[in-house]
Amino acid sequence: AMDGAPPPTSPSGLSVYVAVSQLLGLTLLATTGAWLGRYRGGVAWHSPLQFNAHPLCMVLGMVFLQGDALLVYRVFRHEAKRSTKALHALLHGLALLIALVGIIAVFESHRAEGIPDMYSLHSWCGMATFVLYLLQWFLGCGFFLFPGASFSLRGWYKPQHIFFGITLFILSITSCLLGITEMLLFKISDSYSHFVPEGILANTLGVLLVAFGLLVGYVLTREEWKRPPLAEELALSMDFKTLTEGESPGG
Amino acid sequence: AMDGAPPPTSPSGLSVYVAVSQLLGLTLLATTGAWLGRYRGGVAWHSPLQFNAHPLCMVLGMVFLQGDALLVYRVFRHEAKRSTKALHALLHGLALLIALVGIIAVFESHRAEGIPDMYSLHSWCGMATFVLYLLQWFLGCGFFLFPGASFSLRGWYKPQHIFFGITLFILSITSCLLGITEMLLFKISDSYSHFVPEGILANTLGVLLVAFGLLVGYVLTREEWKRPPLAEELALSMDFKTLTEGESPGG
Repeated sequence: AMDGAPPPTSPSGLSVYVAVSQLLGLTLLATTGAWLGRYRGGVAWHSPLQFNAHPLCMVLGMVFLQGDALLVYRVFRHEAKRSTKALHALLHGLALLIALVGIIAVFESHRAEGIPDMYSLHSWCGMATFVLYLLQWFLGCGFFLFPGASFSLRGWYKPQHIFFGITLFILSITSCLLGITEMLLFKISDSYSHFVPEGILANTLGVLLVAFGLLVGYVLTREEWKRPPLAEELALSMDFKTLTEGESPGG
Repeated sequence: AMDGAPPPTSPSGLSVYVAVSQLLGLTLLATTGAWLGRYRGGVAWHSPLQFNAHPLCMVLGMVFLQGDALLVYRVFRHEAKRSTKALHALLHGLALLIALVGIIAVFESHRAEGIPDMYSLHSWCGMATFVLYLLQWFLGCGFFLFPGASFSLRGWYKPQHIFFGITLFILSITSCLLGITEMLLFKISDSYSHFVPEGILANTLGVLLVAFGLLVGYVLTREEWKRPPLAEELALSMDFKTLTEGESPGG
C-alpha cells in the first residue's frame, strides 16, 4: 500500500470461514468452562479441583491456539512472510506452554489422589501428541526461523512440516474426545446412559471440537485460499536461488 | 502398453508405503481379533457375543476397506480412470455394508441386554460418520459414475468430495478410538489402571489405528504421488471441453 494502491483484500469466503472458526473457538472455551463450572465444581490449583485445569488448558492450548496458529498464513496473507512466521511460532509456543500447565495439572492431581499415570489410550495419544508437537515446534524454528537452513533443505522440509502440523492438530482434537469420554465414564457412569444434561453438554463439546477441526482443516486445504507469495518475495527468492543455489539464505 | 512401450512404473517410495499400509491393515484386524478372541470370548451372532461383531466390522469396514478405497487412485495410477472409479465405489460400498452389519450388531445386543442406544459421544460421532459416509457415497456415484453431471459440476464437486472423504476416514478412526476407550472402561474399569495385558493390547490397537490413518493420509496428500491424467484422458477431456463446455459428458 506504500505506492498508494488500495490495500489488497482477502477472498470474502475466507473471512466468513475464519470469523465462524473464531466464534466456534470461543464457544469451545465457554462450553468447557460451563461443564467444569456447573457440574465439576470449577477450577482451582492445588486443590481437589486441580484436575479440572487439565481439560481447560488442553482445549485452550492444543485446540484453539494451535488452530489459530495454523490459520495465520491465511488470515495475514498480505503481510510480510517473516512477521507471519514469527506469529505462527509464537502462537504455537503459547499453546505449548498452556498445554504444559494442563499436563502438570493432571500429573499433580493423580499424585494427590494416588491414581496411576499413563495407562489409558487417552494418555498415550495425548502424551505422544504433546511430545511430537514440541518436536515439530523445535524443528520448525530450526528450519524456518533461524538462518542456518538452505533453501533446498527448507523446500524439502516444508511439505513434511505442513502434513505433520495438520496431523498433530487432528490428533489433539482426537485426544480431547478421548478425554471427554474417559471423564464422563469416570464421573457419571451410572447416569450417562440416561441422557443427563452433563452427558449431553460434554458430548456437545466433543461435536463442537470436531466442527472446529473441520472448519480449520477446510480453510487450510482449500487451494484458492493458500497464501500467494508477495511480488517482492518471488523476486527475492529467485535472486537468492540464482546467486546461492543450495546455500543458506543467511550464510 | 499396447504400443509395445514398457509398462509404466509407480514411484518406488509409493509402493513401499502402500505395502506397509496393507501390512498395518492386516495387523489391525489381527489385533482386533486377538482382543475379542483372547479376552472377550470371541464373536458370534444372536448370542451374548453378538456385541463383539461391532468392533470387528467397524475396523474392517470403516477403517481398512475405507482406507484401501481411498488408495486406489494411487495404487492403480496407470489404469483407465473409469475402472479405477468403479473399484473406488465398490470398495466404499463393501465398507458400508460391513459397517451396517456392525451397527446392527450393537443395536441388537443393546436391545437384548436392555442398554439404551445413542447416548455416548462414541455413538454420536460414529453414527454421524456412518450417515455422512453413506451420503458421500451416493453423492460420489451421482456426480462421477452416472453420466448426468456436467464437467463444470464435477470440477466444482471434486475437491469437496476429496476433503470430506479424508475427513470421514479420520472421523472413522476417531470413532474407533472412542469405542476402544468406552469398551475398556465398561469391561475392565477396575484393572485398566494396573496395566493389565488386555488394556495394553487395546491401547496398542488404538495406536495402530492412528498409524494406519497417518500412513494412508501421507500417501494421499503427497503431491508427487497424485494420479497423473493419462495422455488419452487429457486429449479426451479437452475435446469434450471444447465441444460441450458445461454440458454433460454423457448427454
